[in-house]
Amino acid sequence: MPVNMISKLLEKAVLPALDVAPPVKIGESRRTAVLRNPNMEKLQKGYLFPEISIKHEEHLRKYPDAKVISLGIGDTTEPIPSIVTSAMAEYALALSTPEGYQGYGPEQGHKNLRKVIADTVYPDMGIKETEVFISDGAQCDIARLQTLFGPNVTIAVQDPTFPGYVDNGVIVGQTGKVDDAGRYAGIEYMRCAPENAFFPDLARVRRTDVIFFCSPNNPTGHAASREQLRQLVEFARRNGSIVVFDSAYAPYVSSSGGAGGAPRSIYEIPGAREVAIEVSSFSKFAGFTGVRLGWAVVPDELLYADGSPVARDFDRVVCTCFNGASGVAQAGGVACLSGEGRAAVQRVVGVYRENARVLVETFASLGKEVYGGADAPYVWVRFPGRRSWDVFAEILEKTHVITVPGSGFGPGGEGFIRVSAFNSRDRVLEACDRLKSFLA
Amino acid sequence: MPVNMISKLLEKAVLPALDVAPPVKIGESRRTAVLRNPNMEKLQKGYLFPEISIKHEEHLRKYPDAKVISLGIGDTTEPIPSIVTSAMAEYALALSTPEGYQGYGPEQGHKNLRKVIADTVYPDMGIKETEVFISDGAQCDIARLQTLFGPNVTIAVQDPTFPGYVDNGVIVGQTGKVDDAGRYAGIEYMRCAPENAFFPDLARVRRTDVIFFCSPNNPTGHAASREQLRQLVEFARRNGSIVVFDSAYAPYVSSSGGAGGAPRSIYEIPGAREVAIEVSSFSKFAGFTGVRLGWAVVPDELLYADGSPVARDFDRVVCTCFNGASGVAQAGGVACLSGEGRAAVQRVVGVYRENARVLVETFASLGKEVYGGADAPYVWVRFPGRRSWDVFAEILEKTHVITVPGSGFGPGGEGFIRVSAFNSRDRVLEACDRLKSFLA
Repeated sequence: MPVNMISKLLEKAVLPALDVAPPVKIGESRRTAVLRNPNMEKLQKGYLFPEISIKHEEHLRKYPDAKVISLGIGDTTEPIPSIVTSAMAEYALALSTPEGYQGYGPEQGHKNLRKVIADTVYPDMGIKETEVFISDGAQCDIARLQTLFGPNVTIAVQDPTFPGYVDNGVIVGQTGKVDDAGRYAGIEYMRCAPENAFFPDLARVRRTDVIFFCSPNNPTGHAASREQLRQLVEFARRNGSIVVFDSAYAPYVSSSGGAGGAPRSIYEIPGAREVAIEVSSFSKFAGFTGVRLGWAVVPDELLYADGSPVARDFDRVVCTCFNGASGVAQAGGVACLSGEGRAAVQRVVGVYRENARVLVETFASLGKEVYGGADAPYVWVRFPGRRSWDVFAEILEKTHVITVPGSGFGPGGEGFIRVSAFNSRDRVLEACDRLKSFLA
Repeated sequence: MPVNMISKLLEKAVLPALDVAPPVKIGESRRTAVLRNPNMEKLQKGYLFPEISIKHEEHLRKYPDAKVISLGIGDTTEPIPSIVTSAMAEYALALSTPEGYQGYGPEQGHKNLRKVIADTVYPDMGIKETEVFISDGAQCDIARLQTLFGPNVTIAVQDPTFPGYVDNGVIVGQTGKVDDAGRYAGIEYMRCAPENAFFPDLARVRRTDVIFFCSPNNPTGHAASREQLRQLVEFARRNGSIVVFDSAYAPYVSSSGGAGGAPRSIYEIPGAREVAIEVSSFSKFAGFTGVRLGWAVVPDELLYADGSPVARDFDRVVCTCFNGASGVAQAGGVACLSGEGRAAVQRVVGVYRENARVLVETFASLGKEVYGGADAPYVWVRFPGRRSWDVFAEILEKTHVITVPGSGFGPGGEGFIRVSAFNSRDRVLEACDRLKSFLA
């Protein structure tokens, strides 16, 4: 058979299997025939923080000499205590020795780190080291949890809140399209505003499979009280829902004891083990935003409707989609939780907390309605009747201070801006001076 | 209204919204009403490598004094050159200084690392630094790519191959159920066996949206020739498919030049930029299995059927589901790709390559049918008429050497075992002695 006949036959053997039209040439580029993931199409255009970076860069092009101060993205700025970085350096250098070399660690994390988290972050809460899964950060865990839950679950989120819960839900296919106000069809938005003490009226909240709850909340800075969290756990138990509790800002809680205090963990609430997963992070606790380390707790008692443990499937996701956090970062994590390390990182947390206090005082002195700051590194300021992005743009234009428009955290954030306490004291004071001149 | 009436009303307001039956008490544990993700249910019971760890532990319990040698999971064992670990240590220590502190890096990775990868791994292949996305390893990138593609695409994989492509596809919902032979409905398995020079007869391969292709292949150790990859790219272009090329073992290719050599990158093939993504890793190149660092290349010219760039959606996935690789690991990656660093890590690769040669020679001297090893750290040995798990168990029982059953990599691996060259020379030689006594 002549070669070109063979090739014709081969082509025939392949072409009938085509699911979609063959590619066409468009200008220089040749498209594939692969359809774009419809869930990716549903995502709102820009992810909040990259959008703000773009605005920042545009501003720098317009005012090349401006001394821009960023109180925008919640990124730590202060050096990490040397007890922690020395531990990381030591671990790294040991990788050059036969005794110190380590290849793959367990996907779930080094045993010593899991244990020290169970012992020091969850004392008397009955959390076992095997229930602690080490990760490369809370955002990554949220993505893996959404992968775990899959497209069929319904979810509820605080409004406003960190956009990662919703965006990862959209990507795995839990939602319909977004409306003009920024609400995705299928998601239950639980309004958290000054009017309801930043806690939803649960009697009016539709039952969902999963409830994402961040406390202290990003962006409002509100730490839910013990009574509020008791209601949340009871609501989840009554409805058979799973709470994903994000405690990334727990080290900023100032009063955690007693009935009035804000718990640092959902597991301080009786009955939480059967309904709650907790995700947390070293990022804001120890300045590990670039080092990348966090964890998730999935208690053994948390079961799906068929009685199978959620932890078993989560373990499978961790082993299949992830391969463990960097061993170097894990060595740093262990150092953070030693007695001396803990004291040292808590001093840095203290710097940001004092920044937050100064920011709250500044806005209050200007007669602004201001929230948060006491138990969180975020200050939440209302600008009644204004649109968040307009306020953001005006503050940037007039004071060269970057904030975050509240509407970036959900429709319930409209009319607010979030001001981050993550910067050096000098820059925060300078920003306060500029804000005072501008807003006075 | 009396309080208990209010509470009755509140209960009513919540209960009608229940989607599923309220939870019931089962023994001590209280189930939630959340349905388990049906995609997770589809996964075959054990993930291969944890399963092998379990067998390893069982063996140690049975023979507490046995000197077990692991030629199983492909985990690096040799120390990392100190030029690399010094760079990581230096970076870590600098995090304790105001000048050296870095918070969040760009989600896509540090600019200097992206540039050095584009320049040194892809010289003359037209890869731009902005097309390189830094990650925490190839497995994590495969999971993110499957999240990107979503549930509606069809996929093809080599059979046998690394299980991560399929498992992550199952998790996002691309497949039906698994059959008794271990094949998931909906996946196109491309048999790669000695009989077809480890390359599928593409004329008989059904068109799919995405083709996962690993070369040098894990587990067979076969590096596809230039002509084979030319056929693959042509096949993808003809069908409008996307190739995900996994080059994690590229540093082990011994002859990459000329028509007969095996390319180290898919981008050595003309026309690949319009159809191929490449994922790769520092794990097997620089002993970074525990440090966690890899990358993906998504060329600008790779387009979905609607003309939108795949890279734009991948960027969004990286920003939403991930938050960048550890900065410490990235500093190590830069050091690996300096002139001196490259020479040093290549010397370690040489150790494993020599191990592979010794293993091939051992099995060949015993009259075994043996493949791979020349361009890969894996040796693929056939045991005709035997089941892989039986051979694995027998070798472990008789020689205390851990291997990997070929069937763990897909039904096409049945009757083979994979032997890893990742161990010290002494242990590999000792393992060879034991295998010789056993198999002779």
